[in-house]
Amino acid sequence: MPPSVVLPSYRETVRAEWVDYNGHMRDAFYMLVFSLAADVLIDLIGLPDAIRTARHRSIYTLEAHLNYLHEIKEGTQVRVDMRILAHDAKRLHLYLEMFATHDTRAEPVAASEQMLLHVDTTGPRGVAFDPDVEARVRELARAHATLPPARFAGRVIGLPTTARKTAQPEGNGHA
Amino acid sequence: MPPSVVLPSYRETVRAEWVDYNGHMRDAFYMLVFSLAADVLIDLIGLPDAIRTARHRSIYTLEAHLNYLHEIKEGTQVRVDMRILAHDAKRLHLYLEMFATHDTRAEPVAASEQMLLHVDTTGPRGVAFDPDVEARVRELARAHATLPPARFAGRVIGLPTTARKTAQPEGNGHA
Repeated sequence: MPPSVVLPSYRETVRAEWVDYNGHMRDAFYMLVFSLAADVLIDLIGLPDAIRTARHRSIYTLEAHLNYLHEIKEGTQVRVDMRILAHDAKRLHLYLEMFATHDTRAEPVAASEQMLLHVDTTGPRGVAFDPDVEARVRELARAHATLPPARFAGRVIGLPTTARKTAQPEGNGHA
Repeated sequence: MPPSVVLPSYRETVRAEWVDYNGHMRDAFYMLVFSLAADVLIDLIGLPDAIRTARHRSIYTLEAHLNYLHEIKEGTQVRVDMRILAHDAKRLHLYLEMFATHDTRAEPVAASEQMLLHVDTTGPRGVAFDPDVEARVRELARAHATLPPARFAGRVIGLPTTARKTAQPEGNGHA
């Protein structure tokens, strides 16, 4: 990627209570790490808790897609890099990749694509971003548009014979 | 659905620690409820903990897709209904819908589609289901094939102008 683009990121460590009987992080807790990461991006576009409360705004998740690529264990330190793939007046289409920071291969352990909606909590109903927030969204989206295509975005889930793209050969411990 | 098809299901109550600052269940904990539900299906196809351990088998999640349709609060009782959409020698393509049991509209609060892989843990590597498990998978899949199409399966995430299908107008509290 161009050196000028520093992606928003979030760091976390796999906690004991997130690990299943296989000794691996349970599938749902990858989603929790991605969710905590998205909170960082939401702050970054100008919607930290205090602003959301003062303006009666919130962000709702409409849809999420997760690809499980490698198992990770308790204590593994991870970093989630985030980018804005697209947006409209009230929606954000995000792409997130999770890396084990000890792994020098730079292959993600998981990827996620999410569609978020900006909400007026007095409805609640979806509403356009306020101008200051929209300006930050545009600025980030413009920078992220220079990146190579998101590898695990735009996927349909299906068996090889029925899907556009096939499932990955590896995954995480289920439960 | 034909009265003869009783879907495998899982019941849960939204716990205080799953609720975010909006007072709604955080997106990641919908995935946790779906994950716990899938555990029930894994038991049902003949792979409870004792068998998995004895045979060195496990189930890994390859991919998951979630649609957030309605917010739910702490204490809400939910039921997840599950069905097998498709399978091959070692993979299961599942579809799950979550309902708030106090809601008589029978509209799901969320839906999920998942691709699971049967794994030999001594590798670990994906391997074909053992014959007794495969027989149960086939039996369930045959019964579930008589159901109407899964409403939130086969979706791509994208903004209306770029995607095959559009995002839903409602979601859950993000965080």
